[in-house]
Amino acid sequence: MTQSSRPRDRTGGGERGGRPDATALLAVRFGLSAATTGNPRIATGDVPAWLERVRRHGGFAVSRIPFAALDQWSFHPGTGNLGHSSGRFFTVEGLRVSGGDWGAGGFTQPVVNQPESGILGILAREIDGVLHLLMQAKMEPGNTGLVQLGPTVQATRSNYTRAHRGGPTRYLEHFTGPGRGRVLVDVLQSEQGDSFWHKRNRNMVVEVSGDIPVQDGHQWMTLGQVHALMGTAHLVNMDVRTVLSCLPLGGGETPGPDLPGTSGDISFHRALARSLGPGARAVHDELELLSWLTDLRTDSTVSAGLVPLRGLAGWRQDEDAIAEESGTRLKVIAVSVRAGTREVTRWTQPMLEFPGQGVAAFVVKRIDGVLHILMQGKAQPGIRDAVELAPTVQCVSRNWEEVPPRSRPPMLDHVLRAARARVRFDAVLPEEGGRFYHRDNRYLVVEADDDFPAAEPDTMRWATLNQLKTLMRYGTYVNVEARTLIACLQSLWPGDR
Amino acid sequence: MTQSSRPRDRTGGGERGGRPDATALLAVRFGLSAATTGNPRIATGDVPAWLERVRRHGGFAVSRIPFAALDQWSFHPGTGNLGHSSGRFFTVEGLRVSGGDWGAGGFTQPVVNQPESGILGILAREIDGVLHLLMQAKMEPGNTGLVQLGPTVQATRSNYTRAHRGGPTRYLEHFTGPGRGRVLVDVLQSEQGDSFWHKRNRNMVVEVSGDIPVQDGHQWMTLGQVHALMGTAHLVNMDVRTVLSCLPLGGGETPGPDLPGTSGDISFHRALARSLGPGARAVHDELELLSWLTDLRTDSTVSAGLVPLRGLAGWRQDEDAIAEESGTRLKVIAVSVRAGTREVTRWTQPMLEFPGQGVAAFVVKRIDGVLHILMQGKAQPGIRDAVELAPTVQCVSRNWEEVPPRSRPPMLDHVLRAARARVRFDAVLPEEGGRFYHRDNRYLVVEADDDFPAAEPDTMRWATLNQLKTLMRYGTYVNVEARTLIACLQSLWPGDR
Repeated sequence: MTQSSRPRDRTGGGERGGRPDATALLAVRFGLSAATTGNPRIATGDVPAWLERVRRHGGFAVSRIPFAALDQWSFHPGTGNLGHSSGRFFTVEGLRVSGGDWGAGGFTQPVVNQPESGILGILAREIDGVLHLLMQAKMEPGNTGLVQLGPTVQATRSNYTRAHRGGPTRYLEHFTGPGRGRVLVDVLQSEQGDSFWHKRNRNMVVEVSGDIPVQDGHQWMTLGQVHALMGTAHLVNMDVRTVLSCLPLGGGETPGPDLPGTSGDISFHRALARSLGPGARAVHDELELLSWLTDLRTDSTVSAGLVPLRGLAGWRQDEDAIAEESGTRLKVIAVSVRAGTREVTRWTQPMLEFPGQGVAAFVVKRIDGVLHILMQGKAQPGIRDAVELAPTVQCVSRNWEEVPPRSRPPMLDHVLRAARARVRFDAVLPEEGGRFYHRDNRYLVVEADDDFPAAEPDTMRWATLNQLKTLMRYGTYVNVEARTLIACLQSLWPGDR
Repeated sequence: MTQSSRPRDRTGGGERGGRPDATALLAVRFGLSAATTGNPRIATGDVPAWLERVRRHGGFAVSRIPFAALDQWSFHPGTGNLGHSSGRFFTVEGLRVSGGDWGAGGFTQPVVNQPESGILGILAREIDGVLHLLMQAKMEPGNTGLVQLGPTVQATRSNYTRAHRGGPTRYLEHFTGPGRGRVLVDVLQSEQGDSFWHKRNRNMVVEVSGDIPVQDGHQWMTLGQVHALMGTAHLVNMDVRTVLSCLPLGGGETPGPDLPGTSGDISFHRALARSLGPGARAVHDELELLSWLTDLRTDSTVSAGLVPLRGLAGWRQDEDAIAEESGTRLKVIAVSVRAGTREVTRWTQPMLEFPGQGVAAFVVKRIDGVLHILMQGKAQPGIRDAVELAPTVQCVSRNWEEVPPRSRPPMLDHVLRAARARVRFDAVLPEEGGRFYHRDNRYLVVEADDDFPAAEPDTMRWATLNQLKTLMRYGTYVNVEARTLIACLQSLWPGDR
């Protein structure tokens, strides 16, 4: 492994462009927000009750329906693809995959094709010297508990251009058009590569300077409050997690003298703070990481393409589901929704349902005093670039408990059997509730033992949080499961101050 | 326009990762190579004669043939797509495009579908303290003059994995596998978005430390020599130009005190050197550029997809061409090739032929002493991300002289009618000769007048060379025509030293 060092007085920003250390300054400001949990507007402990109140007052109801009861959605007579009469929103189509681990035979499955990019946007504002985020109590039909903590705006282009002829998307004007505030984060990121075809959403954080009205169902909260809620089951939604993972965060800790490289010599939190800082010694420099990823992308033999939903081999369509015969794969279902506070108050739509619970985990390790994450270069069929950086363990497309031993991903058992003291984060978190029905995965951050193998498998590399956050500024390098885990990991900082 | 500044002692590298200022050091080493034109192995002036010698000794011959004379290539009975019997190399298929500037009706045309990534690789080696590049006298059937100056390795995956059952690709082992040298550049970049479907090639520069044998048809040359040849018509091929555009280059010039912002106050070359440096004041910081590009990508309504080649509306297939009825668009043709020094010595293949000559131009301007380029965010149907940064003027898909006045791109006449003193670069350069038949475009770098409008059109932004080179480390941000112009522009430095 190549060791490297950087001048100690470098504090960030790098080649981001113009302003002096704009990124570093922003990282410090978000660091202060992360360290702040007091908030006279809403106490952190009251957030679950607030979400519950919104749920009760919203008059929400979601029920499974047969496909024949779908309104404005229908199966195309030729292809069997399931689409909306407007031609907008999304379609459910077939996906054929071959090559790579799947061999020449490959497999087929239904997939959600949603070519347009939505906006996942959080408004930020400095209140009493601390950045606050405008969070939303957001209902989605697939959410466990229906209402979860969402970003200020979470809308597909079809929604915010009002293809559904409903009301306007609140706060949208702060994210689009020339009058918007100061853009702090703005990048297209991929979503679930096992069930979306080339889907990307625009992750945004925009800072406003003046006071703006707080509408029903919204609250200003500090980053520290959201971090504190991250470990609560089914609470912070996926859209919040991916946006927060893109934030510059850090500052306050200079690298300081180096200590010997065993984990006992430096606290976990100090190693985490160093991992977030741009001056950290990394096992690999960025060019090494990029070149390794380019190797994987170039060598990938995975071939994936859309095919008609009708007649997918091994899949059967009945009145209320399209399912694979084994029952271990996703299903296409339909739901009816009533929602008093949404842009439209009643609709029906198809959704995807997943069997059981998946698991995704980071294995992390303090290396020369800096926390590193073992990232996997993982091929997924719905990803535009075939391979992105994924968690060390990612087993989310089916119930991990039912994966037979010889098919279990490397290190799955290592993370599931880790001693309690090494488990830094462990929670069941929801995936996107607008397309997935009750899809929850268990997310784990597990610290490696001192005797964890130092040698990296060909498909894995150690990286720091700062390296991942730098790559994420340029788009689709880090997949959505890894971005959730980045948000989980950063929520542990600065826990012990 | 937002002005910004950075500490003067920042010398590069930024957040590239580990090693201290590795990028800055590399930029200085390539800067030294760019400033060196003396070479006892081959004088710059002798390069054209060397290429001519290789051409004569190679026994090359290329002739147009009817489709029926193609060997191993055939039209698919169902789709009419033109493919190779191995299923490798590439196919010629149909493309349907609608939306954006093309409206709901859109258009159709043939397109080359080549999903696999090839390698465009240059070996570098320090000789007498100066980095030298191993250049190749490279024959391609579509080249004007047949033999042009190419990179060390220029091979599709089908070639280098020997799908053609020919000889091995020379020097390939230095670019792939664990024994390769030190990787200096390694990134997937897009190619022509008007005629390739999602094509990308891997641009690489690898440094070797020991002596390696120089095979027939190869020569060690300095970067300065290649730069000096850049303005010669039909000489430096596209593959060299795109790889060189990815090089870190600069150093030697610290920003120094700022001068008033008129072009007369600082020399063009000093402004160019500053544009290459990471410390330069830029009109926009990187986040502003990225957010503007994300706006264009999100708002793009261009929809493009592959369709069967058979029965494209408005296109007619006869014995030896597939052509559009107006005659102003590309044609599909077939050629027979004899080549003594290629991996296989005889083959036939389809190619694309373009009508007349296109034009692509950078408008550049000294702003506060730093050279800026007016980049266009341009939608092209074959580009994965829909929109990339393109030259200020890009009119390469048809003969620019025949474009009617009302369809002429903005600023086309501005660059064609510029006073001679403002034209910093002007040459006819070849496009890729493995797929295109005699496709040449005129490339111009034109300096704006002092009274050039400061306001940017919505689809254009001023950027420095360093900003473009930083984005290019992360992949498909800058299109191939703009990368050629970046290579042309950097070839002007350090001309007056």
